[in-house]
Amino acid sequence: MYHTESKKIRDLLVKNISSFKGGTLFAIGDVTVNITGKDGIGGLIEEWFGVWAEEKGFNITDPKKNSGSQMFPDYYVGTDNSLLEVKTFDATASANFDLANFDSYCESVAEFPQRVDADYLIFSYKLEDDELTIENVWLKKIWEITCPSDAYPLKIQQKRGVIYNIRPAAWYSSRSQFHTFKSKDEFIEALYDTQEEYCGKGGANKEKYRSNLG
Amino acid sequence: MYHTESKKIRDLLVKNISSFKGGTLFAIGDVTVNITGKDGIGGLIEEWFGVWAEEKGFNITDPKKNSGSQMFPDYYVGTDNSLLEVKTFDATASANFDLANFDSYCESVAEFPQRVDADYLIFSYKLEDDELTIENVWLKKIWEITCPSDAYPLKIQQKRGVIYNIRPAAWYSSRSQFHTFKSKDEFIEALYDTQEEYCGKGGANKEKYRSNLG
Repeated sequence: MYHTESKKIRDLLVKNISSFKGGTLFAIGDVTVNITGKDGIGGLIEEWFGVWAEEKGFNITDPKKNSGSQMFPDYYVGTDNSLLEVKTFDATASANFDLANFDSYCESVAEFPQRVDADYLIFSYKLEDDELTIENVWLKKIWEITCPSDAYPLKIQQKRGVIYNIRPAAWYSSRSQFHTFKSKDEFIEALYDTQEEYCGKGGANKEKYRSNLG
Repeated sequence: MYHTESKKIRDLLVKNISSFKGGTLFAIGDVTVNITGKDGIGGLIEEWFGVWAEEKGFNITDPKKNSGSQMFPDYYVGTDNSLLEVKTFDATASANFDLANFDSYCESVAEFPQRVDADYLIFSYKLEDDELTIENVWLKKIWEITCPSDAYPLKIQQKRGVIYNIRPAAWYSSRSQFHTFKSKDEFIEALYDTQEEYCGKGGANKEKYRSNLG
């Protein structure tokens, strides 16, 4: 189900996880700081991962090099340019990263159904004072890290009734109220049923997705 | 107008600015990365500034130590615990930081009018590959870095008609369409006139602000 190269990457990360301790040294002028703040640590781990994977000889490319950081995907893996997304979260709290902007994900999956097959490489970390530890690494498909919610068939982030982002399930917890989806199809149903309930246009995108599956 | 301690801090920063070059070294396990991404650099500069100011002997305390990073203010300065906010932006683009959440700023200024008198210490930086340079340092009051806009008497960030944050003027540019406010009073007028236009409740907060000025 996952790309062979993604699986090799995950396996080596898991194998070496006990050595994954470190931190951030930030210097300007004559003052150097061991950083203790958590803001922005996700971006640092993402950039570190790209260098780590290259140094270990994996077949991985970063389409964002010298451009914006909000582009999809984070990385291409393998000779067939399979999609790899990297996500991070603080292991002392719940996973709360944005999986994708809801509207643009609905559109892009309809137009480019391969997007649903992207691999997700997820790191959880702990920062104690200035000491960073990677606690866990997972390789997942999007339907394995998303779930329904009370509000909508798909768990999303909303503010004042406006849907912003697709948010992750607590896939790592056995005590979570909502279980992750059982299949890609279940996720796609929930995605477009949510769009239908939200703005009445999920049906058309569902059709487009199916006809573009080719 | 600014706090004496804030002015001393600004003066020493400006005096030493030619030495303010540096960068971020991020290590996990056996792989160390010179960070080239801009995400999160604001938080790093903010944390660095606190350590720099302490090392240089300034009277400054960080109320957020060991707590969340979204609290107001960033720092207290002087023996009278005057308010100091630290903001950063990429010198190759326009200033685009959030000055404050619009709703909570309207409330908190009405309840605690001293908030309007906070000093803002602003850093602009350049990141070329992994080399960070502090380009400029300003000490400002909020009415010197805010302005009107086409949409509202106060420039704000809105998405789908919902107001989120107070956004900065281009105070450093002589070519900007909208000029910064001339006084604290002009800013307060624009703040509550914007709230009035937006949700019809600016008047009450304006009254509360005046009576709390005491």
